[in-house]
Amino acid sequence: MKLLRVGDAGQERPALLDADGTLRDLSGLVADIDGALLADETALDRIRAAADTGALPALDDPGVRVGPPVGRIGKVVCIGLNYHDHAEETGAAVPAEPVVFFKAADTVVGPHDTVLVPRRSVKTDWEVELAVVIGRTARYVSDDENPLAYVAGYAVSHDVSEREFQIERGGTWDKGKNCETFNPLGPWLVTRDEVPDPQALSLRLWVNGSLKQDGTTAQQIFSVAEVVRYVSQFMTLYPGDVINTGTPAGVAMGQPEPKPYLRAGDVVELEVAGLGRQRQGFKDA
Amino acid sequence: MKLLRVGDAGQERPALLDADGTLRDLSGLVADIDGALLADETALDRIRAAADTGALPALDDPGVRVGPPVGRIGKVVCIGLNYHDHAEETGAAVPAEPVVFFKAADTVVGPHDTVLVPRRSVKTDWEVELAVVIGRTARYVSDDENPLAYVAGYAVSHDVSEREFQIERGGTWDKGKNCETFNPLGPWLVTRDEVPDPQALSLRLWVNGSLKQDGTTAQQIFSVAEVVRYVSQFMTLYPGDVINTGTPAGVAMGQPEPKPYLRAGDVVELEVAGLGRQRQGFKDA
Repeated sequence: MKLLRVGDAGQERPALLDADGTLRDLSGLVADIDGALLADETALDRIRAAADTGALPALDDPGVRVGPPVGRIGKVVCIGLNYHDHAEETGAAVPAEPVVFFKAADTVVGPHDTVLVPRRSVKTDWEVELAVVIGRTARYVSDDENPLAYVAGYAVSHDVSEREFQIERGGTWDKGKNCETFNPLGPWLVTRDEVPDPQALSLRLWVNGSLKQDGTTAQQIFSVAEVVRYVSQFMTLYPGDVINTGTPAGVAMGQPEPKPYLRAGDVVELEVAGLGRQRQGFKDA
Repeated sequence: MKLLRVGDAGQERPALLDADGTLRDLSGLVADIDGALLADETALDRIRAAADTGALPALDDPGVRVGPPVGRIGKVVCIGLNYHDHAEETGAAVPAEPVVFFKAADTVVGPHDTVLVPRRSVKTDWEVELAVVIGRTARYVSDDENPLAYVAGYAVSHDVSEREFQIERGGTWDKGKNCETFNPLGPWLVTRDEVPDPQALSLRLWVNGSLKQDGTTAQQIFSVAEVVRYVSQFMTLYPGDVINTGTPAGVAMGQPEPKPYLRAGDVVELEVAGLGRQRQGFKDA
């Protein structure tokens, strides 16, 4: 299923994109697409059954805003330097184990919302990523378990980053990862059953129509399954938590000088195969 | 006022500790102590007025669990190496600007809850801190504003840390800061009007009855006001967000070998003058 949330920011209602591409209203069936729903197999089956019978009312509002596909996100865990070619372009060594940092859930916006270039920013950069949305509490996942059983689904994520804040201002990367609007997510949460192999997804990103990133999750250093298992040894993952699993090569930081960092007026489009497409205009904060 | 939340985890109701030390039930007056309440001056005044008239019912349950004093925390921003003596004991240079990292809000527990030593942990450490709770949305706070006007109040915070996860496992500090139960908070949120100078608070921490940390916020490298202003340049702070403002010297990492890291069975007590006292037993996760 392709689950999404539509409506004004903070007022989104749950919806489904059906096989015909019609938007269906789920608000008669569930309160929201959030951790509580994703942990509730019965409720998900109810949505699936309703979708199959064609009984869900169409949402006849072609201009409706699409919000992030998960509400009440607890935390956004991010994996850094998780593609061989991206580690190389940044001059970093290939990490021996996953690099973990955080984005606050309040940075998450809809896939087509405006992204704000922070004040005094000189190095705002793009990063297309595969996001994993957790469906079951994952705590010390053991080697003989399937970590993907803890995954509710997948989404496109834009891990917008300010490189000067991230790298040159002391402290950890978090300083350059948590600016307002820095995590467009969606348009859809695609449930796990529709993504048979999360390591075979192409990711692409364009800036002002020019292709900048063109990778595949096959290049991930640590697979989605490894990441879920690994992170769960250090912290508990709850339903509705999100993991941004890293970006392939092609970010502004990896280009020759003068590096083409983002400015007000730029438009970024990004997609992950099967998970939909985002488009953001950038403006000054 | 001293605001708190009492009851089973996830079921806490709002309360007030009055001037006589009597616990008063606020659940007839407000739904919870959370960002929405802290941003609502009228509701806070209503509590203040009810407390003054003595009209609030006493909570006659001496054994009641105390939860974290803020519900629905959005994010916990942490400042690292913010005391001269702590930077020195860790061997780190005094930072030129605040070091920022994150704890997930789901690590926050009550002040007397059990803290779990993570599996495979060999370096679980303590850190008494002054926590700041945000009361108004703070976004690019300017030099001519008073950053403390964005503060709802203060609380004791225990920034429990796993040093091997934090420092020796690659990536940013977040990996050693986000283990389950790693942020006891409370017992109270003491409103800003009762803390005239946040730079004049003594902080102390004991392990198994032995004094380990004995500092004062006068030793902070970056004051609470500076921290709020600084952080608001990089991310938006929302009502109910928490900032852990750093720890003074005396952590296990700073001791001679063999460093006395925490183990199951240890008991940690900590206090900040005027903000109350915490006591946690440690056990294995």
